Amino acid sequence: MTTTNQLHGVLAPVLTPMNDDLSVDVPKWIAFCKQLLADGCTGLAPFGTTSEGNSLGIDERIDMLAQLIDAGVPAACLMPGVGMCAIPDTARLAHQAARIGCGGVLMLPPFYYKGVSDEGTFRAIAEVIERVGDSRLRVYLYHIPPIAVIGFSLATIERLIKAYPTTVVGIKDSSGDWNNLRSILEAFPDFGTFAGSEKFLLSTLRMGGVGTISAMANVIPGILRHLYDHWLAENADQLQERANVHREITRDYAPIPALKQIMATRTGDPTWLNLRPPLSNLTQGQVTQLLAKWVDG
Amino acid sequence: MTTTNQLHGVLAPVLTPMNDDLSVDVPKWIAFCKQLLADGCTGLAPFGTTSEGNSLGIDERIDMLAQLIDAGVPAACLMPGVGMCAIPDTARLAHQAARIGCGGVLMLPPFYYKGVSDEGTFRAIAEVIERVGDSRLRVYLYHIPPIAVIGFSLATIERLIKAYPTTVVGIKDSSGDWNNLRSILEAFPDFGTFAGSEKFLLSTLRMGGVGTISAMANVIPGILRHLYDHWLAENADQLQERANVHREITRDYAPIPALKQIMATRTGDPTWLNLRPPLSNLTQGQVTQLLAKWVDG
Repeated sequence: MTTTNQLHGVLAPVLTPMNDDLSVDVPKWIAFCKQLLADGCTGLAPFGTTSEGNSLGIDERIDMLAQLIDAGVPAACLMPGVGMCAIPDTARLAHQAARIGCGGVLMLPPFYYKGVSDEGTFRAIAEVIERVGDSRLRVYLYHIPPIAVIGFSLATIERLIKAYPTTVVGIKDSSGDWNNLRSILEAFPDFGTFAGSEKFLLSTLRMGGVGTISAMANVIPGILRHLYDHWLAENADQLQERANVHREITRDYAPIPALKQIMATRTGDPTWLNLRPPLSNLTQGQVTQLLAKWVDG
Repeated sequence: MTTTNQLHGVLAPVLTPMNDDLSVDVPKWIAFCKQLLADGCTGLAPFGTTSEGNSLGIDERIDMLAQLIDAGVPAACLMPGVGMCAIPDTARLAHQAARIGCGGVLMLPPFYYKGVSDEGTFRAIAEVIERVGDSRLRVYLYHIPPIAVIGFSLATIERLIKAYPTTVVGIKDSSGDWNNLRSILEAFPDFGTFAGSEKFLLSTLRMGGVGTISAMANVIPGILRHLYDHWLAENADQLQERANVHREITRDYAPIPALKQIMATRTGDPTWLNLRPPLSNLTQGQVTQLLAKWVDG
């Protein structure tokens, strides 16, 4: 871990609670952010995929971020998702995040056009960095080809690190493919590499990675933090297995609706079920199945 | 064609000229819009895929649209692309378009999340329409699964028409699949169906469709307009074949870079080559090949 990598540990891509009119319930969101930090998260990655980040407008995100800081959440522990399809929008949000002191930003490549070249992906990220033009900017590349389709090749990662060594400081690998994550860890030992799934947390730390940014951190932050804090302990594999149980229970369901269902059940607050289209809630049958298996950890 | 479908004929998804710093060259864009209308386009679909529409920020699009109207281009002939990933952004841009009198808007479904349900896609479009809440809004669905991945099934189209019969008035089918386009034309005879490729223009008109919104309309508007005006003529098939020649010449190249290359060569203005990342220009070898074959029509 280089000195430019401040973010590490267990980060939650924070679920976004919404009112019945699908506006963001900002007070509930801020309270949830604080709760996650109290319960074990070392940092937060709001506006990630699990946050329905790309279903939030740019003005909404800027406003939410400002309110979160105003409420006393330390900017240094935040890695907001900023990657949109249009470079001006991504640059505007990334600049705002850097200006207020966010520890980093999580940056998708532009994901509308398919079949683009490595050259095009490199230039898109470079153009954003140049436009932001702020030495405080810390970029974590967001590699999630199962959803964004467009991702970062090893060659593009290498080129970005060489071009912007103090700015492009890490990656979240949500490929779901351990071989890809391992390749990144092997190729870039000083990079701030986060596993996109907590199931790879121990393996990632053992290979020099810095932590996980995982949807499951919304519901089992303490279990994941315990694993992170004790990854050198003798029983570390057991701690990993303990975490894996919760993923196994949820794996048959669409992840965001399943996690919002768990939050609604846990809190007794049905507004946790609100999702922005195009996402849909679980069916009643799925809810019954899920809740029969789920045990709060 | 029902009375609510005003837009028909040959619409260009207008190429977006950019300065060397990748800002939009708005005066050149406005002049190009006017030229396309003078040269044969019956309407314009700015901010489409060919326009690098999703590489433009929302504020850029709103500003460009206002300047275009101010410059005297009739709003009634415009169908700007408005579909983004976040419902508030899509609703904001669609509302602005309706307010200033645009003939329609071209609306992608939210395209970040993959594997979403028909229910989710329906609710996304419905939510935008409800938020706009303006009877002047005319929505043309934008079905382009090769790029957006997410598209509109026949069932979703039918449900949207039934729910919003005076608002959801048409579709651009850019599936590239004649069978899909034919299915739409057969299922919804009174719908404003545009072929997403000019190669299907004659077939579309013969089955009751209303025209084409085609990238090629940027460079051969006169040829396509002649076909549209004479589709009932005896030589209509020859006119279609004449148009097809130009598509054949460009088919081996990435379409947006190829069309910008043709514009740069035609006008002698190299700034036409500017593209926003992640798109990249053709290689010099490709340029040589393309220009050896291309003849301005």
